[in-house]
Amino acid sequence: MSGEWIAIDWGTSNFRAWLMAGNDVLDKRSASCGLLHVEPGRFDSTLKMLLGEWVESGSPMIAMAGMVGSQQGWYEVDYCPLPASTDSLLTHSKKFTTSWGSEAWIVPGIRKAPNGDIPDVMRGEEVQLFGLSLLEGIVDFRAILPGTHSKHARMKKREIVDFSTYMTGELFHVLITHSLLGRALPDAVVDDSAFLRGVAASRRNAALSQLLFSARTLRLSGEIPPESVSDYLSGLLIGMEFCTDNTGLVWLVGSTALTRRYQLAANAFGIQTRCIDGDRCFIAGMQSLQQQLAEKQNGQL
Amino acid sequence: MSGEWIAIDWGTSNFRAWLMAGNDVLDKRSASCGLLHVEPGRFDSTLKMLLGEWVESGSPMIAMAGMVGSQQGWYEVDYCPLPASTDSLLTHSKKFTTSWGSEAWIVPGIRKAPNGDIPDVMRGEEVQLFGLSLLEGIVDFRAILPGTHSKHARMKKREIVDFSTYMTGELFHVLITHSLLGRALPDAVVDDSAFLRGVAASRRNAALSQLLFSARTLRLSGEIPPESVSDYLSGLLIGMEFCTDNTGLVWLVGSTALTRRYQLAANAFGIQTRCIDGDRCFIAGMQSLQQQLAEKQNGQL
Repeated sequence: MSGEWIAIDWGTSNFRAWLMAGNDVLDKRSASCGLLHVEPGRFDSTLKMLLGEWVESGSPMIAMAGMVGSQQGWYEVDYCPLPASTDSLLTHSKKFTTSWGSEAWIVPGIRKAPNGDIPDVMRGEEVQLFGLSLLEGIVDFRAILPGTHSKHARMKKREIVDFSTYMTGELFHVLITHSLLGRALPDAVVDDSAFLRGVAASRRNAALSQLLFSARTLRLSGEIPPESVSDYLSGLLIGMEFCTDNTGLVWLVGSTALTRRYQLAANAFGIQTRCIDGDRCFIAGMQSLQQQLAEKQNGQL
Repeated sequence: MSGEWIAIDWGTSNFRAWLMAGNDVLDKRSASCGLLHVEPGRFDSTLKMLLGEWVESGSPMIAMAGMVGSQQGWYEVDYCPLPASTDSLLTHSKKFTTSWGSEAWIVPGIRKAPNGDIPDVMRGEEVQLFGLSLLEGIVDFRAILPGTHSKHARMKKREIVDFSTYMTGELFHVLITHSLLGRALPDAVVDDSAFLRGVAASRRNAALSQLLFSARTLRLSGEIPPESVSDYLSGLLIGMEFCTDNTGLVWLVGSTALTRRYQLAANAFGIQTRCIDGDRCFIAGMQSLQQQLAEKQNGQL
């Protein structure tokens, strides 16, 4: 099969896949076909449909990460404990064969054990973290992966040693869509000044549930125009992430649109940042894991 | 007309009215007929319908408070600035006559001017605060009025001098109804231990957007049963209110169900509390305002 393989990020809402030849991306596809859209027991046939001609004339290896390995996914793959290395990810991964004969495997997520602290979990972002490490040749770093559930992670000596989840994206969405704060808002405009005002508000020593109400009152008092309320709220929520985590250089891993916002907020806190594309990190991480897995399997032959 | 009058709390979602004779409650009614259910320009006819026989054979004075005085209400009544006394409420109140001849008036809300701080507003709770002052014979106190938008207020020398809004009730509702935290939850049970665990979590030095995710992970890890997630989340959000406001005795003004929760949380912070029924405070406040208004008008004759 000439070294072709497929990398897949299969999440709750979205499906994204890359057809690879070694390190090179040959083709890419995405679909709004996350786990929520797959009927129970239909993962194999759904995947075949999604991959189409990529698997018509062959059965390339398939490497998957994300919520596809969760309780609601194809197979539930146990979380790796911290600290997590690529080795432990591979050891805990789930291997199986698809109905059309592709060898497939699912990267496990990572779990932060409670031991007095609040437990936490991630699925998918661990691959991006290892990808970032490889692409930039760094083994000790802090990174933020913005999104529905923003992740703050720390890598030491090539191992993920700590991380925390902030429900920033989801909070923003439910507040704008379902709360008083979003009621009767016109279409949002980009307003960096409103965004930074939100960031500044996040630094007040007050509860978020209190600060949120300012998105209402500043609109009522005419200090923030209705079309900028969305950016004010975004600044408030993103700023919150930096209030208790604001030391040293931090990598921002994601789309340009999101990392730019985080960079603006980080600057306001005097935090140094570097941005990197999330997809590049994901592909690099999967490529490395896939290669290690192949080497392991060859070693076992 | 024998001194009959009507006190009304007309909010965004609910309508509540009391038929009074002096200090005595003769009758009470409530309807899920808040502002959101009243068509523009239909406040007069809606009120007549809601009051029914109370206004069929007469035209008693009607004293209203709450969002009925907001931009989306019957008349927009300007907010009183801080500090706010009963005198200033009466001065800023809106007086008019209904189509059936009742003299009616709407209590203004209160506004906290920005001057560097975040602006804030209340409508309706100011009446309860003055009522509490009268019922208990206290002129300097702190009070929390739990609800969709929980209010923390301070009265000094019979004047409301400061207050802040916490979106606790609304946050709870949107998170349980629309976020991952509430997805596929069974019916909630009362679980004080889960509630207090939420309160304890609120005291960690971490962003709320981060702490919220624990309502997911503690469920995933089996540490909190699904039917208790709701009480855990409630404890987390209510606890947040005490993290930055936790000195001295505080009055809890509201329904028994809500003030009990706040009392549990306050106890965990070592904060002394006293509870009082919110309706009693509202009626006492309205009665006093109504009496002062009548005296003023008689003085003007």
